[in-house]
Amino acid sequence: MSFHSMWTELLPVGRSSASGGYRRFAWTAADAECRAWFEEQARARGLACEVDRNGNQWAWLGDPAAGNAVVTGSHLDSVPDGGAFDGPLGVVSAFAALDELRGRGVRFTRPLGVVNFGDEEGARFGLACVGSRLTAGKLTAEQAHRLTDRDGISLPRAMEAAGHDPEAIGPDPERLARIGAFVELHVEQGRALDELGHAVGVASAIWPHGRWRFDFRGEANHAGTTRLTDRHDPMLPYAETVLAARREAERAGAVATFGKVAVEPNGVNAIPSLVRGWLDARAADQDVLDTVVGGIEQAARKGADGHGVTLDVVRESFTPVARFDHALRDDLVRILARTDGPDVPVLGTGAGHDAGILSASIPTAMLFVRNPTGVSHSPAESATEDDCLAGVRALADVLEGLACR
Amino acid sequence: MSFHSMWTELLPVGRSSASGGYRRFAWTAADAECRAWFEEQARARGLACEVDRNGNQWAWLGDPAAGNAVVTGSHLDSVPDGGAFDGPLGVVSAFAALDELRGRGVRFTRPLGVVNFGDEEGARFGLACVGSRLTAGKLTAEQAHRLTDRDGISLPRAMEAAGHDPEAIGPDPERLARIGAFVELHVEQGRALDELGHAVGVASAIWPHGRWRFDFRGEANHAGTTRLTDRHDPMLPYAETVLAARREAERAGAVATFGKVAVEPNGVNAIPSLVRGWLDARAADQDVLDTVVGGIEQAARKGADGHGVTLDVVRESFTPVARFDHALRDDLVRILARTDGPDVPVLGTGAGHDAGILSASIPTAMLFVRNPTGVSHSPAESATEDDCLAGVRALADVLEGLACR
Repeated sequence: MSFHSMWTELLPVGRSSASGGYRRFAWTAADAECRAWFEEQARARGLACEVDRNGNQWAWLGDPAAGNAVVTGSHLDSVPDGGAFDGPLGVVSAFAALDELRGRGVRFTRPLGVVNFGDEEGARFGLACVGSRLTAGKLTAEQAHRLTDRDGISLPRAMEAAGHDPEAIGPDPERLARIGAFVELHVEQGRALDELGHAVGVASAIWPHGRWRFDFRGEANHAGTTRLTDRHDPMLPYAETVLAARREAERAGAVATFGKVAVEPNGVNAIPSLVRGWLDARAADQDVLDTVVGGIEQAARKGADGHGVTLDVVRESFTPVARFDHALRDDLVRILARTDGPDVPVLGTGAGHDAGILSASIPTAMLFVRNPTGVSHSPAESATEDDCLAGVRALADVLEGLACR
Repeated sequence: MSFHSMWTELLPVGRSSASGGYRRFAWTAADAECRAWFEEQARARGLACEVDRNGNQWAWLGDPAAGNAVVTGSHLDSVPDGGAFDGPLGVVSAFAALDELRGRGVRFTRPLGVVNFGDEEGARFGLACVGSRLTAGKLTAEQAHRLTDRDGISLPRAMEAAGHDPEAIGPDPERLARIGAFVELHVEQGRALDELGHAVGVASAIWPHGRWRFDFRGEANHAGTTRLTDRHDPMLPYAETVLAARREAERAGAVATFGKVAVEPNGVNAIPSLVRGWLDARAADQDVLDTVVGGIEQAARKGADGHGVTLDVVRESFTPVARFDHALRDDLVRILARTDGPDVPVLGTGAGHDAGILSASIPTAMLFVRNPTGVSHSPAESATEDDCLAGVRALADVLEGLACR
């Protein structure tokens, strides 16, 4: 089955006709359809398919017990109203690269695996990369058991309803010990490759990133009758903080975003008692990130003081820098340079990935495919079919270089 | 029954033990309890109690058909988690003022009415002063029939469930024609009386006021990977507009508030596609209000353009200035001056009231009672018992002056 056929077959699964975006959330019917598609692709290629204790799907050519396996793949779930490429491009390209290598008639000297990591986006239970985190021991079974979705359904109940045993989840060091290299292909989530004029690039590192909750508490009051001087309006320091985040990020070459807000009582004629804003901030290194977040917090405190409002800042999550294996990265650059010439792009990224989670446990690398809109987590994310096929060829070259000599 | 006893009896009705605030929404069980309390107070005083076609409750001393009636009262419903005084103080004071006048042994020369207007706050169906608007013909039955609450229950269904015939609603000019004066006593919703050192004041006018919806539409994107220069982030011009609203209001001596916000998709790691903010703006006259709103809109357009975001501004509601009857106002000032001295405070207000709705149809006036916190629409609104009793005496003086000579 060609790249095009696989892509077309997967395209309607979990797509909302209202938004045109995808709603493939962990352990839902749409997720099950994606998993059935994966199993079918594995079966059609004669690969041994298995689901690990954490719900990740694996398809094997050769016996992984032999060790030093080369694994490629990504995830099939989506953010709410996400695009078609984020995740699926890496899985479809993995199967297509295997087809390409079989077409080349190469001989595999290492076991080859294709993987579909479960619950990468965290859209349903609020935590990203649950499948790979559990496997790498970066999330305990106890912590995972406490995750719930917005309807109050716990992760264990959701797993059970989908036919997976929630008591089985936990670290899987033996599985990881059998893997010599993991290469994840992913659509780029920015426009760097487009500007550089390259279809494919190699990842250097995932920026350190985190989220901080800013709680501005003032005093609810009547918007029509309370004089400006008598107000303790938390919307005002919130607004100042939003603008400070942009300013600080610009100055430092980082990114900082307030994309989520909750207001109480959120009435048109009521001065709010509470404005809660979430900051997402990322930078190329830890020092820069500390400077950016420190600057934003300082502006927020100044604004809160100026308006007689209190401020609490809580760091809700944090992921330190994930540097991909240097030797593996250099292998990828050398292999790509044979086809693409000497200036293979090597890019940092602000997005988290399963490859980032696993980079602390096993040699890990990433390939990016050009996204001309630069848009991500939206139906507007894109990649041309030519670039997708260039990605498949690059991945095939890499797998041949790693697993066939 | 004394003011204190009435107040104490009404106090627990519809109070949330969680917030300490009131949830007396139109046509709910709490509303029915308030109405039963009103009926009981009327019966205990030998007043003829009736509910008009629009669900407003009236208690009559004398025959209103005689015409030129003097009416006092307010409302018993509340905003979500509102305070105890906004509305009930005017109704309780009305009954207490009648008791006071009977104690004084005065003779009534005009019919006297006590009124409880239905659905003043609009907390459930989103439109304020539904009872008085319908009666004054400022809201048609067809418009009222289309109102629904957040659970999708329509106003007619809610009325029916509470035993009121929704087919009866509509303008009631004959009822209004029998009223020669309406005086509403209300807790002040600011701190002007407190600063002036007066327990009671008289209203001059209700400021023109309105609400405007600002829709900033940008482009949803990944907060971690989208470079600042590639963003169309609607949160940034929204923040600039919040600050512009404060600046413009300050400059003009008006009030302007963004108290309600809706964000899409409202995800921590997503640049929003839409930030929708609601502006509440009020000023002493129309020209000032136009200048303030115009200035805010201009700043919003500049911000939107600067960030590559589109902006739509929709005026969702508007109420022009309501000037209270000059002769009646002067009567009230003269009557109060006999007890309080020559400098009776005459205050404008930014809040809407049933008295404002009726001021276009009949001679209408308002008395305000000091609120030391200045807080309104919150459990923190307050009035001392001494000031409440001063309000009752002032109202009794006014009713005696109007209805007993």
